[in-house]
Amino acid sequence: MTKRVREILGYYDSENAGVRSNLARMLNHGKLAGTGKFVILPVDQGFEHGPARSFAVNPPAYDPRYHFQLAIDAGCNAYAAPLGFLEAGAAEYAGEIPLILKLNNHDVLNDEKDPAPAVTGSVKDALRLGCAAVGLTIYPGSTATKSMYQEAREIGEEAKAHGLPLVIWSYPRGSSISKQGETAIDVVAYAAQIASQLGANIVKVKPPTAFIEQAEAKKAYDANKVTLEPLSARIKHVLQAAFDGRRIVIFSGGPKESDEQLINDIRQIHAGGGFGSIIGRNSFQRPKPIAIELLGKIMDIYRS
Amino acid sequence: MTKRVREILGYYDSENAGVRSNLARMLNHGKLAGTGKFVILPVDQGFEHGPARSFAVNPPAYDPRYHFQLAIDAGCNAYAAPLGFLEAGAAEYAGEIPLILKLNNHDVLNDEKDPAPAVTGSVKDALRLGCAAVGLTIYPGSTATKSMYQEAREIGEEAKAHGLPLVIWSYPRGSSISKQGETAIDVVAYAAQIASQLGANIVKVKPPTAFIEQAEAKKAYDANKVTLEPLSARIKHVLQAAFDGRRIVIFSGGPKESDEQLINDIRQIHAGGGFGSIIGRNSFQRPKPIAIELLGKIMDIYRS
Amino acid sequence: MTKRVREILGYYDSENAGVRSNLARMLNHGKLAGTGKFVILPVDQGFEHGPARSFAVNPPAYDPRYHFQLAIDAGCNAYAAPLGFLEAGAAEYAGEIPLILKLNNHDVLNDEKDPAPAVTGSVKDALRLGCAAVGLTIYPGSTATKSMYQEAREIGEEAKAHGLPLVIWSYPRGSSISKQGETAIDVVAYAAQIASQLGANIVKVKPPTAFIEQAEAKKAYDANKVTLEPLSARIKHVLQAAFDGRRIVIFSGGPKESDEQLINDIRQIHAGGGFGSIIGRNSFQRPKPIAIELLGKIMDIYRS
Amino acid sequence: MTKRVREILGYYDSENAGVRSNLARMLNHGKLAGTGKFVILPVDQGFEHGPARSFAVNPPAYDPRYHFQLAIDAGCNAYAAPLGFLEAGAAEYAGEIPLILKLNNHDVLNDEKDPAPAVTGSVKDALRLGCAAVGLTIYPGSTATKSMYQEAREIGEEAKAHGLPLVIWSYPRGSSISKQGETAIDVVAYAAQIASQLGANIVKVKPPTAFIEQAEAKKAYDANKVTLEPLSARIKHVLQAAFDGRRIVIFSGGPKESDEQLINDIRQIHAGGGFGSIIGRNSFQRPKPIAIELLGKIMDIYRS
Amino acid sequence: MTKRVREILGYYDSENAGVRSNLARMLNHGKLAGTGKFVILPVDQGFEHGPARSFAVNPPAYDPRYHFQLAIDAGCNAYAAPLGFLEAGAAEYAGEIPLILKLNNHDVLNDEKDPAPAVTGSVKDALRLGCAAVGLTIYPGSTATKSMYQEAREIGEEAKAHGLPLVIWSYPRGSSISKQGETAIDVVAYAAQIASQLGANIVKVKPPTAFIEQAEAKKAYDANKVTLEPLSARIKHVLQAAFDGRRIVIFSGGPKESDEQLINDIRQIHAGGGFGSIIGRNSFQRPKPIAIELLGKIMDIYRS
Repeated sequence: MTKRVREILGYYDSENAGVRSNLARMLNHGKLAGTGKFVILPVDQGFEHGPARSFAVNPPAYDPRYHFQLAIDAGCNAYAAPLGFLEAGAAEYAGEIPLILKLNNHDVLNDEKDPAPAVTGSVKDALRLGCAAVGLTIYPGSTATKSMYQEAREIGEEAKAHGLPLVIWSYPRGSSISKQGETAIDVVAYAAQIASQLGANIVKVKPPTAFIEQAEAKKAYDANKVTLEPLSARIKHVLQAAFDGRRIVIFSGGPKESDEQLINDIRQIHAGGGFGSIIGRNSFQRPKPIAIELLGKIMDIYRS
Repeated sequence: MTKRVREILGYYDSENAGVRSNLARMLNHGKLAGTGKFVILPVDQGFEHGPARSFAVNPPAYDPRYHFQLAIDAGCNAYAAPLGFLEAGAAEYAGEIPLILKLNNHDVLNDEKDPAPAVTGSVKDALRLGCAAVGLTIYPGSTATKSMYQEAREIGEEAKAHGLPLVIWSYPRGSSISKQGETAIDVVAYAAQIASQLGANIVKVKPPTAFIEQAEAKKAYDANKVTLEPLSARIKHVLQAAFDGRRIVIFSGGPKESDEQLINDIRQIHAGGGFGSIIGRNSFQRPKPIAIELLGKIMDIYRS
Repeated sequence: MTKRVREILGYYDSENAGVRSNLARMLNHGKLAGTGKFVILPVDQGFEHGPARSFAVNPPAYDPRYHFQLAIDAGCNAYAAPLGFLEAGAAEYAGEIPLILKLNNHDVLNDEKDPAPAVTGSVKDALRLGCAAVGLTIYPGSTATKSMYQEAREIGEEAKAHGLPLVIWSYPRGSSISKQGETAIDVVAYAAQIASQLGANIVKVKPPTAFIEQAEAKKAYDANKVTLEPLSARIKHVLQAAFDGRRIVIFSGGPKESDEQLINDIRQIHAGGGFGSIIGRNSFQRPKPIAIELLGKIMDIYRS
Repeated sequence: MTKRVREILGYYDSENAGVRSNLARMLNHGKLAGTGKFVILPVDQGFEHGPARSFAVNPPAYDPRYHFQLAIDAGCNAYAAPLGFLEAGAAEYAGEIPLILKLNNHDVLNDEKDPAPAVTGSVKDALRLGCAAVGLTIYPGSTATKSMYQEAREIGEEAKAHGLPLVIWSYPRGSSISKQGETAIDVVAYAAQIASQLGANIVKVKPPTAFIEQAEAKKAYDANKVTLEPLSARIKHVLQAAFDGRRIVIFSGGPKESDEQLINDIRQIHAGGGFGSIIGRNSFQRPKPIAIELLGKIMDIYRS
Repeated sequence: MTKRVREILGYYDSENAGVRSNLARMLNHGKLAGTGKFVILPVDQGFEHGPARSFAVNPPAYDPRYHFQLAIDAGCNAYAAPLGFLEAGAAEYAGEIPLILKLNNHDVLNDEKDPAPAVTGSVKDALRLGCAAVGLTIYPGSTATKSMYQEAREIGEEAKAHGLPLVIWSYPRGSSISKQGETAIDVVAYAAQIASQLGANIVKVKPPTAFIEQAEAKKAYDANKVTLEPLSARIKHVLQAAFDGRRIVIFSGGPKESDEQLINDIRQIHAGGGFGSIIGRNSFQRPKPIAIELLGKIMDIYRS
């Protein structure tokens, strides 16, 4: 157990030993074991965006076992997916990689402006599948926040009582927020704060832009001369918003973009003190060897 | 146990001994111990207003442990915060200051006209975190009052059965009320009455202005020559509305304003028989030594 | 919060913040506040031995309020009693002294050789009465240990989940143990180990004699040259048996004996590293001023 | 509400207002309303002793409605009976007299040495029948005390949570006690203490004789010169044992005896500070007008 | 994941992925990771035999943290202990070694001929402490088998539904079996079969002698010329009895004996196809460096 891992576990000293053990399982797994950093493979896009949009570009990825193997071969800390995908491989890959059951989901066949995901799994599912954590998405800015926050809280309470950490994907979206605002620095920082206040042990947000959505926030940034450039400064600010760096915050890779851009972003996330990345489409939407190479490069950055 | 504390506990003789013990824990803690007065530190603004607006002016306040320490050093009666903030310090500061779990929350990423906060914590959370009370916000005037009042009542029932007092933040807001009306004397008095009728043991409202929102209320004030000036007279009227002074009513400090104005308000609250203040932004949005000095001045007034 | 109290709380880092807060409430109450030492007033003798045997010598002690007041006036860390006694004073004395609900009891109208106490209170009772802990008696050596241990364990699990520490009175008794063996050093040490393994946060045993009951234990003591004289050495050994001093072990005063003998015993308990005493009959079976004087002397020893 | 009734209700200040209201209903009903004294009609002998032994001497008493009417006509504070008897009249006499559901029972078709009564009613039964309290028998001294005490405690907890006071008939009996010992002063006092410690609001015992059963108790009585003659002194001692007079203790009339003897006993109970009598066989085993006359005499004594 | 580990997991293909994951956690931890072999440190002797008999020979072992560290330093697959010992280190050592909560226990203060252990922990305890499995002792041959088997089965059912494997310590003992018979080959094989039939995922038995207890078994061994010498042949037979080698069977080291004898036994266990050893007293009853050296030798044998 490295000093850094102990330090991070120390941030969670109000949680029971079970929650801390499962955090340790993820922190001590894969190529980043012991560094305090994370690269997680998430594959919920089949549900969230549809199968062809997600997998047609790399058809082996239609097979749920493909993603278990990818996460294992790449040396990720964990693999996160909805119930069906996990059920399709959990027995075969039992014990090979920490699993995160993403237990709410939303699809775009009904793409409402104010999304409210459905709860599609349970804490008991996570336990019978051998998961190391449960995960949920909330959409701050949606008019449906009341039900989402309450579900996150109730599931989190049950999960933690059973020794499972709570991961929250905090993605601002909804009629109260502009499209540009979804990744605005003030909005992303706020989303990280909300997830942390809901009791999340790991918070996932998108890398923020320098855009500021809320007039009141802009006043605060200006008045207090908060540095928002470059990206690493914004990452640092998001970490501040997540209890001054005392909550694990990881950043999504977003849609498939140029590798160079992605790598640059990772460097900035690392420089800003981010705890790691969750890389979905940029990994499974390319042939496995190439994906593993890219993930290896990302891990090298986080190890540096 | 002072005579005044006994007298106040006597107001709650239909509550079980557990509720009274926890009220006593707060009444007998900190610099105002035994006076029957309260100064509480509340820090839910990270959730309610956003992290940068709340903490950028005093960056150490991003760290949840900062507020535990501030409340302890200043000698507050209690510290109130949402789940995440309490989880981040409850173990480290176990037994050092009475805690209030504020277990519903609302954020302004979706700043609807008729807000309905989400329930973000439970009575069991409060017990496992060692809290002395639970707190909730209601927004009288919102179209969502039915669900809010019911949640307050159900949580209150469970909390009290487990020996935890119920604190209600009663903040009029919503499409039925004008902006000016939110702090109108008739509306604030009404909000105090509603919270008391819902079974609150401690009621928190904003200091009222002399504005009167409701025509029918105006008639009653005029007909009965109710004195509404100065502020101390309005405070006295709010206390009347909270069961003739037999419920603990404390007043918020509101947004950061001039210290002189704040101190004057406190003097009026004290003169009007108010039970104390809940001072958030005016305390944690300045360097800790200065905050402690200000809180000390406020406590001196309540002790006088 | 003193360094010693923090250190003791650190022994319980697998417990939730609620359990730790309530331990802190007792550790920080009364004349021994902050020292890490305990003097607790227990009054269950009315139930366990009968009212006249317990109170006839000092008739004011028939009144349940007497004991609340005695514990408060003497500056004890806590007062422990069965349901009826606590219900008879909890409201009047709410918040004045930490309470321990002793929630199983046995009487001698049916004084069987292998006693099995009845569960006479619940965790919910403890919460509604504002208690800081729950307590139970087990009788290792009785043929009824299976049901007793299981009740202790189930009640302990529920109590801790609700933030209440578990106190176990571990009193060897039953057909497998000789009368002399009930206070034998090997038996008392074993009783402390069993209570600790059952999850007790505070363990209460009798001061052990140098007698050794079990042949196998005698072999171990002889072979390893374990020092058993004077009493302080035996106290030290009992603490070893309670997780090497990492569980709070307090010692009963036993039947009313000469004050000199009692004081000498306390000195030995203190010298051996004991966490304190639980003084029942030696306190409430004499006039209150004299009891307070005696308790004061005991506290002075523990403070030295 | 008389001063005396207020004073008695004050003994129960840890109970909820519902329990206190139902105590007040009984205290303020019938000819003794407001005096703080009780005469209760109990009719469980049909179950406990058999119908012919109970009712053949006065055949109208086979009809359950007879007893409702008797209690009403005599001006008793309450009428206590098992489920069947109450179900047979509760609707017809709804609101006319406070009812106590005696919800455990034992019969002599199986007259074991160590009796353990069956739970024959529920708190829900008591509520649907409009009862003012629930009652149970315990047999201290029986080898079955563990299950009896636990049932009493669990039913008591549920009853009080629903606003119903708990009445315990505490009748020492069993293989650990001699026949003479069942009414020995030390045993009856102990039985009163146990019932009080189990949370009983009203305790019913038999008038004690001057016999002393337990050697240890005898030592205490002798050493402390406890006065045990005449009966009024013993009554006073039993009240001491019931929390120094702060629990309502009422005394049974026992088997039908000479009226003169009964009346003398009542005078002694009254002189010793007893809260009243529960008169079964001495009332329903004679023609109603004569029974009413006798009960009237008893009430006159308690009113004097 | 080695081929051998996959093969072993394949034996449990009716178990859910959670149970298999936790089996894999133990199979892939420590110096024997990947070999399919186990060396587990069990420390329940403080409860089962008494503290001095267990720890006086090596006093640092009184401290519960000692055993966590020993298991970690030696590279064991897992550490097994009762509730108290696990609670005393689970938070500090979170994630460092798989834990097995041994959730029933028996002590020898009441050393009955037909032991029935008390259930001293729960599946929820195991989850909140982050355990990888739960364990129980059964005593085939005791008159109390019905309750023991049922508790094992019920707890096993609950544990597996929550993803936790079931370990059964199957120790023949009781009035139906001779002292010599407790380790007789037919009895040990029978005990392994019973544990397997109860659903145990891991079975722990003692190394069997060549003695045969049951006449009917002797007939079967003779008629079918079952080889019972040397020890490796008996080990092989026990594995047959545990579903032809398709259940993990590990063997206890028993009381402290000569290292040479112990090592010889381990060689025979390994030669007979045993899955490993559970070494308690032979490890913690000697100085840590020497214990680690011995455990290292044992592991070398299992790796050969």
